[in-house]
Amino acid sequence: MNLSDLKFMYEGKAKKLYEYDEDKTLIYYKDDVTANNGEMKDNMKGKGNINKKFSVYFFKMLEEKGIETHFVEDVDENSFIAEKVDIIPLEVIVRNYAAGSFCRRYGVEKGMKLEFPLVEFSLKDDTLGDPMISKDAALAIKLTDEKTINYLKDQALKINKILNNYFLEKNIILVDYKLEFGIKNGKIILADEISPDTCRFWDSKTKESLDKDVYRESKGNLVDTYSSLTRRLGL
Amino acid sequence: MNLSDLKFMYEGKAKKLYEYDEDKTLIYYKDDVTANNGEMKDNMKGKGNINKKFSVYFFKMLEEKGIETHFVEDVDENSFIAEKVDIIPLEVIVRNYAAGSFCRRYGVEKGMKLEFPLVEFSLKDDTLGDPMISKDAALAIKLTDEKTINYLKDQALKINKILNNYFLEKNIILVDYKLEFGIKNGKIILADEISPDTCRFWDSKTKESLDKDVYRESKGNLVDTYSSLTRRLGL
Ligand SMILES: Nc1ncnc2c1ncn2[C@@H]1O[C@H](COP(=O)(O)OP(=O)(O)O)[C@@H](O)[C@H]1O
Ligand SMILES: Nc1ncnc2c1ncn2[C@@H]1O[C@H](COP(=O)(O)OP(=O)(O)O)[C@@H](O)[C@H]1O
Ligand SMILES: [Mg+2]
Ligand SMILES: [Mg+2]
Repeated sequence: MNLSDLKFMYEGKAKKLYEYDEDKTLIYYKDDVTANNGEMKDNMKGKGNINKKFSVYFFKMLEEKGIETHFVEDVDENSFIAEKVDIIPLEVIVRNYAAGSFCRRYGVEKGMKLEFPLVEFSLKDDTLGDPMISKDAALAIKLTDEKTINYLKDQALKINKILNNYFLEKNIILVDYKLEFGIKNGKIILADEISPDTCRFWDSKTKESLDKDVYRESKGNLVDTYSSLTRRLGL
Repeated sequence: MNLSDLKFMYEGKAKKLYEYDEDKTLIYYKDDVTANNGEMKDNMKGKGNINKKFSVYFFKMLEEKGIETHFVEDVDENSFIAEKVDIIPLEVIVRNYAAGSFCRRYGVEKGMKLEFPLVEFSLKDDTLGDPMISKDAALAIKLTDEKTINYLKDQALKINKILNNYFLEKNIILVDYKLEFGIKNGKIILADEISPDTCRFWDSKTKESLDKDVYRESKGNLVDTYSSLTRRLGL
């Protein structure tokens, strides 16, 4: 696909969006890596390809299991075509184990298994630092309505079951991850990406990080880590 | 009451607790004022007396309206006797209008009326900066159980109706406030304080602050503000 033929729509930290047609967008996965709200920034050859592959694989899997996603068609190394959606400005975070900001926030131990899969929301707003928001607060400031936010939580928990089953078999712990949903013709569908940039994975035995924490915490080469993960999953 | 006759139990930022008897504590309201997690700190003669008076007045009012509180008996200028409770480590924040940290967190305008009275929780932990916590997160880390947290929310909303009715008549807007609850013989009762230190009040017409924001934002003399508020309320 020659990107210069397409109208540029939007550039975020990890992806560029182009207009594919009236209803569809071509999502190009960049090799850029950022962390800590832009404080860390690098370019790592091959990362975009891996995240694209990852996303395509899991969007297809979820579609097969009845979850509607924005995925339409794979295109090339770094891009796929997706339904153009209006992104709901709530990041949906699913946590199976305590890690990262959750541990810092509440002073709980990294690796603690939560009582149940926890769905948290944060307001998608980089200038505010994506602040956590409760369901009630989101409703009280009319960010969304009750039906929508309940649906987001239900979908997140369904997705979590599917992904947990998958990773359990691979001896990988799905610690936590961030989902984004969007609206297409009044319907809410899963959008954005599912990748080692947006999920935390630990090896079940060694508890080694197989995700962007390797970059955040300077624990090794990011692309090597991602590559061995995709090989391990057979993607 | 001669405090030196009583066993000292605990000193917080605004109050000292003494053992009155096995079941009861004498709460002494200090003249200390702090803000921004201890960054601002002063001593203001007369503040403790006003906050004590305020608390006694509202605990009595709430008791009359069927809300169980820790209040037992008024003692003197700065102290009253209360049931000794095990404080539940969740601050219960009720918001009728957007103000303070809520505005900064979500980028909403100060004074915006919320869709409904919002109950938020934060983990009572100064070293963590009292982080906001959702109901689900509190349950997921077993900080509390569902029955308890639902009860806290219900009580907070009942209290909010009573207080809103009262302040409406006085042409004062009850913007937001923080409650603490404790457990006494397996029962959850309202504890701590209700004062201009822990509530935000605005004059309905001028929108002037009648609370600790006067100190936080260096907008005038705190004790003068509190005194004229208590006079206005006839306390
Ligand atoms: N199918 C889609 N339609 C429209 N926008 C999308 C779609 N999928 C993802 N997006 C949005 O594309 C933007 C670019 O992604 P990314 O580079 O990850 O951005 P960010 O810097 O916000 O993380 C994000 O705002 C994301 O919400
Ligand atoms: N009835 C009670 N029994 C036991 N502890 C109480 C009671 N009422 C309030 N407390 C606790 O007394 C402590 C002192 O109050 P304060 O000085 O306001 O403390 P803080 O610095 O935590 O705000 C607080 O930890 C509060 O939760
Ligand atoms: Mg992103
Ligand atoms: Mg206090």
